[in-house]
Amino acid sequence: MKPNVAAAKAALSHLDIEKSPSAIRAKSRDFFWYSPVLKARLDHVEADFVVAPRDEAEVIEVLATCYAHDVPVTTRGAGTGNYGQAMPLAGGCVMHLQNMNRVRDVQPGRVICEPGILLKDLDAHCRAHSGQEIRMFSSTWATATIGGFVAGGSGGVGSCTWGSLRDLGNIIRLRVVTMEETPRVLEFRGEELARVSHAYGTNGIITEIEMPLAPAYDWVELFVAFDDFAPAMDYAEGLGNEDGILLKLATVFEAPIAHDYFQRVRPHVAEGQSLVALMVAPQSMDGLLTFTARTPGARIVYRSDASDWEKAPGRIFEYTWNHTTLRALKVDPSITYLQVRYGFPDHKALVERIRAQFSPEVLQHLEVLRENGKAMFAGLSLVKFTTEDRLDEIVRAHEDAGAMIFNPHRYTLEEGGRQSVDDRQLAFKREADPKGLLNPGKMIAWDDPDWSYERMYAYPGLRAAE
Amino acid sequence: MKPNVAAAKAALSHLDIEKSPSAIRAKSRDFFWYSPVLKARLDHVEADFVVAPRDEAEVIEVLATCYAHDVPVTTRGAGTGNYGQAMPLAGGCVMHLQNMNRVRDVQPGRVICEPGILLKDLDAHCRAHSGQEIRMFSSTWATATIGGFVAGGSGGVGSCTWGSLRDLGNIIRLRVVTMEETPRVLEFRGEELARVSHAYGTNGIITEIEMPLAPAYDWVELFVAFDDFAPAMDYAEGLGNEDGILLKLATVFEAPIAHDYFQRVRPHVAEGQSLVALMVAPQSMDGLLTFTARTPGARIVYRSDASDWEKAPGRIFEYTWNHTTLRALKVDPSITYLQVRYGFPDHKALVERIRAQFSPEVLQHLEVLRENGKAMFAGLSLVKFTTEDRLDEIVRAHEDAGAMIFNPHRYTLEEGGRQSVDDRQLAFKREADPKGLLNPGKMIAWDDPDWSYERMYAYPGLRAAE
Repeated sequence: MKPNVAAAKAALSHLDIEKSPSAIRAKSRDFFWYSPVLKARLDHVEADFVVAPRDEAEVIEVLATCYAHDVPVTTRGAGTGNYGQAMPLAGGCVMHLQNMNRVRDVQPGRVICEPGILLKDLDAHCRAHSGQEIRMFSSTWATATIGGFVAGGSGGVGSCTWGSLRDLGNIIRLRVVTMEETPRVLEFRGEELARVSHAYGTNGIITEIEMPLAPAYDWVELFVAFDDFAPAMDYAEGLGNEDGILLKLATVFEAPIAHDYFQRVRPHVAEGQSLVALMVAPQSMDGLLTFTARTPGARIVYRSDASDWEKAPGRIFEYTWNHTTLRALKVDPSITYLQVRYGFPDHKALVERIRAQFSPEVLQHLEVLRENGKAMFAGLSLVKFTTEDRLDEIVRAHEDAGAMIFNPHRYTLEEGGRQSVDDRQLAFKREADPKGLLNPGKMIAWDDPDWSYERMYAYPGLRAAE
Repeated sequence: MKPNVAAAKAALSHLDIEKSPSAIRAKSRDFFWYSPVLKARLDHVEADFVVAPRDEAEVIEVLATCYAHDVPVTTRGAGTGNYGQAMPLAGGCVMHLQNMNRVRDVQPGRVICEPGILLKDLDAHCRAHSGQEIRMFSSTWATATIGGFVAGGSGGVGSCTWGSLRDLGNIIRLRVVTMEETPRVLEFRGEELARVSHAYGTNGIITEIEMPLAPAYDWVELFVAFDDFAPAMDYAEGLGNEDGILLKLATVFEAPIAHDYFQRVRPHVAEGQSLVALMVAPQSMDGLLTFTARTPGARIVYRSDASDWEKAPGRIFEYTWNHTTLRALKVDPSITYLQVRYGFPDHKALVERIRAQFSPEVLQHLEVLRENGKAMFAGLSLVKFTTEDRLDEIVRAHEDAGAMIFNPHRYTLEEGGRQSVDDRQLAFKREADPKGLLNPGKMIAWDDPDWSYERMYAYPGLRAAE
């Protein structure tokens, strides 16, 4: 451990510092290993020490101390991100927010909480308080934190109704601490939220979050099978356009995803069947059944409110979003994925074009998502990985066809996003992190403003494997 | 009074029968007089007697008795419809459901009630019970009944989010009594709902309603002024497409509607200003303000949560939907209106085309409405009435341009709708009303299956003025 790092650690020794080496390793890692590309580059990455502040004052102390000693700080929640968001590339301090898990206030339509609370616990609190829940969550609901979701996520279960986290109204307020000699505490709303949401903790640390809530219904979870892919896609999109049917989730799995990778679903679908997963409000079930009866070939194989399955499938959202990839990976370790945007109004044609070109090397997994008021698709396609070159070729083919890729085989904000500099985030980093110590290596614009994106960015400060 | 009618009345004399001649006249009339065309034809229409059953058993008794005596029965709620829905064209019995106003059950996301409860009272009950309210309501919320809304309405405040009443999921279940020798009681869900919803009580009488509910927030009500019409329209539509901003209402009034017809708003807008009315969930206000700040020229002139108006405008939805027409009519009795559908994706271009052709003879009043998942417009255009021929000419010009008209100057289901026979409603009328006694004259398909729609339908059984 370098002397400056050791000094910072010593200065923070009265805080909750992780002692177990295996826990330090575990808390230095996120789910970057979904990507063979990131796995090859980041597997050795580890923090020098891990600290878990108990409140905002301790966050300030950690940041001021590390600032004084020039120690990098990578902040994380549960580390369930897949873009290497929480990987401490330059070592130093990992600041874990697990202790900051209080709910401060629940009101009709909103909650105020600390960042380290699990999505699951936050929902349980809001449901018990007043029958409410968060509008959207990642499929890692049971293990992920709200702060990690806001700082490193983009949307999820609920986005078929509410759109993405970046849409106006889906985050109300963030309280943020800067990393300066004397850290400042700032409150962001409205236009200012974009400075720090989805910024991987590169330019400020979120210490309080105000989120909108929606009613917590006893969502009915369904699987609906189709003999062909196109009718499954049409059905899911059609439901997404039914204004009177309240959905929390609508997912399409191309065959043979369900049969090959979903162990408990396997007895109920044929290899050639595509599957749709749904979460529907109970008061919308009559509408759902009517819509389904109008759809030739749609066959409901599971509904959580009337199941005859010997082995229950568990929560259905844990088959969707990036849990699809996880389930596939468990069966076939050579599987990885891509994150794709199929935008309205060409979304269905685009999916079919990509599918014609790449299936089954690339299998379509679509999430119905609202964007600018229109139902379209986020794709979390399953990719049979062979080489990095082939993966890059597949990415390029998507982009050439007009499908935007949020590349999960890159660890920078820009490469995982729209491959362009976010001026608001960069400008705020100049203010809030003048020494560039917050989650270093994740914002190309900070390191290398003239980067051309022709190849994968390699952070020069990435600590070498020993 | 004809002997058969007198006999039916006598047989029902133990029920709640209206005695006052002025009340009989009042309860024989709805808001048909918004239309000069209907006013010229229906002003003399009056029931022979008015009965108000207290429960379903009494509804059955009324229907069986009137069936036995061949007496027409026109059923109504508060009579706030504008298409003459509740006008007893052939006289006979008006059955008023004011006594059937019980709420039977409220659950998360749904309510079961009788048809005669006022929308306002239903909402008050659901809010007190569990912070819920109905998804959509007519601007006559304070005086209209849920049964009248379901049987004679199409949508309203809330339709910018939830679509129309006819959309799957916006009505869950209807309990219906037929008019046969021995009336039957039927329960309709799903596909069957279309038989009797929006059928003006021509083919069955609704005695119980199950509707979905949404959370009852303390909606913030706003007026936003613009110097030009197009930016006002863009703003309202843009808000309708913001998936993270929860709206209950987004309305556009072309200048000088607000200045000329909205007395309490007049001091706050110039004659040339177009106005947008909004109802926004409190947790979405930051998003709303951010969106508004992005819109050049948008000026918030009123918000209910921070008003400095000397005279409060009252509930903002009472300026919208058909209350706009009502307010204009009060100032200028020569005003009437049209009901227009401007469908996605041509809605804005279509509005501009019509406006270029007809403003200010026709002033645009637009309601943002969701249809098949897309924000578009329902127009309730204000029309300066001169002659019936000119009104017909304006209607034709809309249709020629591609804007569908639901003509509120006609009293039949078909002419006020899509000018085509609804086979499901007709088929059910054959079953449920074999003598054709329910609200006679309102379903052309029943009276004259070969009607060509070339001119206004005139019901041959319309009782002559005395």
